[in-house]
Amino acid sequence: VEAHAIAVDLGGTGLRAARIDRFGNILDRLEVATKAQAGADAVLEQISELVDSIIKNASDARILGVGVCAPGPLDTKRGIALSIPTINGFDNYPLLAKLQECLALPVVLENDAIAAAVGEWKFGAGLGSENIVYVTVSTGIGGGIIADGKVLRGRQGMAGHIGHMIVVPDGELCNCGCRGCFEAYGSGPAFAARAKIRANQGNQTLLGKNNAKIDCPAIFAAAKAKDPLAIELVREEAEILGRGFTSLAHLFSPDLIVMGGGLANEFDCLIPAILKNFRANSMKAFQNIPIRCSILGGSSGLIGASSLLFEQFHTPK
Amino acid sequence: VEAHAIAVDLGGTGLRAARIDRFGNILDRLEVATKAQAGADAVLEQISELVDSIIKNASDARILGVGVCAPGPLDTKRGIALSIPTINGFDNYPLLAKLQECLALPVVLENDAIAAAVGEWKFGAGLGSENIVYVTVSTGIGGGIIADGKVLRGRQGMAGHIGHMIVVPDGELCNCGCRGCFEAYGSGPAFAARAKIRANQGNQTLLGKNNAKIDCPAIFAAAKAKDPLAIELVREEAEILGRGFTSLAHLFSPDLIVMGGGLANEFDCLIPAILKNFRANSMKAFQNIPIRCSILGGSSGLIGASSLLFEQFHTPK
Repeated sequence: VEAHAIAVDLGGTGLRAARIDRFGNILDRLEVATKAQAGADAVLEQISELVDSIIKNASDARILGVGVCAPGPLDTKRGIALSIPTINGFDNYPLLAKLQECLALPVVLENDAIAAAVGEWKFGAGLGSENIVYVTVSTGIGGGIIADGKVLRGRQGMAGHIGHMIVVPDGELCNCGCRGCFEAYGSGPAFAARAKIRANQGNQTLLGKNNAKIDCPAIFAAAKAKDPLAIELVREEAEILGRGFTSLAHLFSPDLIVMGGGLANEFDCLIPAILKNFRANSMKAFQNIPIRCSILGGSSGLIGASSLLFEQFHTPK
Repeated sequence: VEAHAIAVDLGGTGLRAARIDRFGNILDRLEVATKAQAGADAVLEQISELVDSIIKNASDARILGVGVCAPGPLDTKRGIALSIPTINGFDNYPLLAKLQECLALPVVLENDAIAAAVGEWKFGAGLGSENIVYVTVSTGIGGGIIADGKVLRGRQGMAGHIGHMIVVPDGELCNCGCRGCFEAYGSGPAFAARAKIRANQGNQTLLGKNNAKIDCPAIFAAAKAKDPLAIELVREEAEILGRGFTSLAHLFSPDLIVMGGGLANEFDCLIPAILKNFRANSMKAFQNIPIRCSILGGSSGLIGASSLLFEQFHTPK
């Protein structure tokens, strides 16, 4: 009998679950829209239903437990969601205990970006490395760090809140309520917001013409079509990311930086300017650190959560 | 027979050596001015002479070896000084091998700020904590991180270059050659440079009057004497440090932040405004992280280096 893990990735928009083997293969996968406004009970019920469906499909595989990842700040030492900004009802919520109760299986809980870092470390772009900084650039910016061959957790398991490194003194207001955070400059919404402002300033651009929506895909598409403003905006976004990655390199000294999240879909478009800025801003001893694209993409969190579950309950030490 | 360690702290201005027992007690201590312009051989000879003197004073204590700390970037995995900005002749220099050869004792080599972090962790302000960010604010800004009960080393042992986190895009030129680094804003010389400019702008101040020297001690003295510009400058310096500490809290999630280095001599003067800014800029879950002053002061590196030596050669595992 083979042991499989169920992994759950609780996001602000999508709720995903998968059955995964110990080699990181996804054997089954389901996704629904998160009932982000309906409160914690409704979300727990959604998770429970998804896990039920996965188990029903599993025929005779044995289910080791459920690895769950969710946005932070999450006190993973105590299993408490301190708050999930994108989902209602999870303030100081005993998420681990509630999940164990409603799923009736062993549960491992991890911050979603840390889980994604583990996924890329064990089965993705960071395979074989001892020191990885994983950065997800999406609606927000999150991170997970592997240092000296171990997951960096810190107090309450809350290390790696990369998006809230301050990059501009008294700068733009961030979702977290503070000012000048990396997330407030480098995230997808920040990128799109800059594009809207600049398009409205009458710059030479097709962005927003005929009331077209200005979002990240539209900006990248325009840049590829040689729209001057879009090209400039992409270069600026890459500058912001390149500088942020420089700071992370100096702070953590990783063997490589892995970029994931929605903006990693346009990695090829961004990476030349990211690398240029990264190298220009880094001290010599850090300039050759590679920056790679996530390999597991949207599944890195699920695969990482399953891997943490296997490690906790299965792997002989 | 008791085993003692010799510790050497190689700084840009001072070269210090001490004999230290396994409880962190300094039993003997010598200091000379570093021959920073004379080249690597001359400095090695200085170290050798200091260690000789310490051994001669040691009577019948047994010497376990020598723990050496030096400014980075230092590849401590291979024992190579990549460059020491403040001392000539150490570019790509095989420091560990040369030290072992000239001292004829087992040598452990560590970055000075990491050694200081270890000192504070084992015997100082961080005693009993699993997660510590140690920040030295002095001629430069350096750091050492203890995470999940271990020293964070990273690729080539170069983690913790806190001073080169970018805090202002395309900002002030830093000693490292890049722009906008934390060190270029928060270090002692940056603080004094701001004071000189502002005093010359005809602000209401006694700073620099009758050609008095404007340096950090002068600014703090003037602030204590209620000089308006000096008070403002101290508040600004605390803001810079507070924001930097916020970033470090979000990145590493420490149990506490320990501030050392020359500016920690004025910790009491700085800490109210540092804490105010730290709390204003931090996410709720991080606001209660304490910021404490180094307890070991100028000896934290020596004591940490000795502790690393005891750990490597002595402590039963």
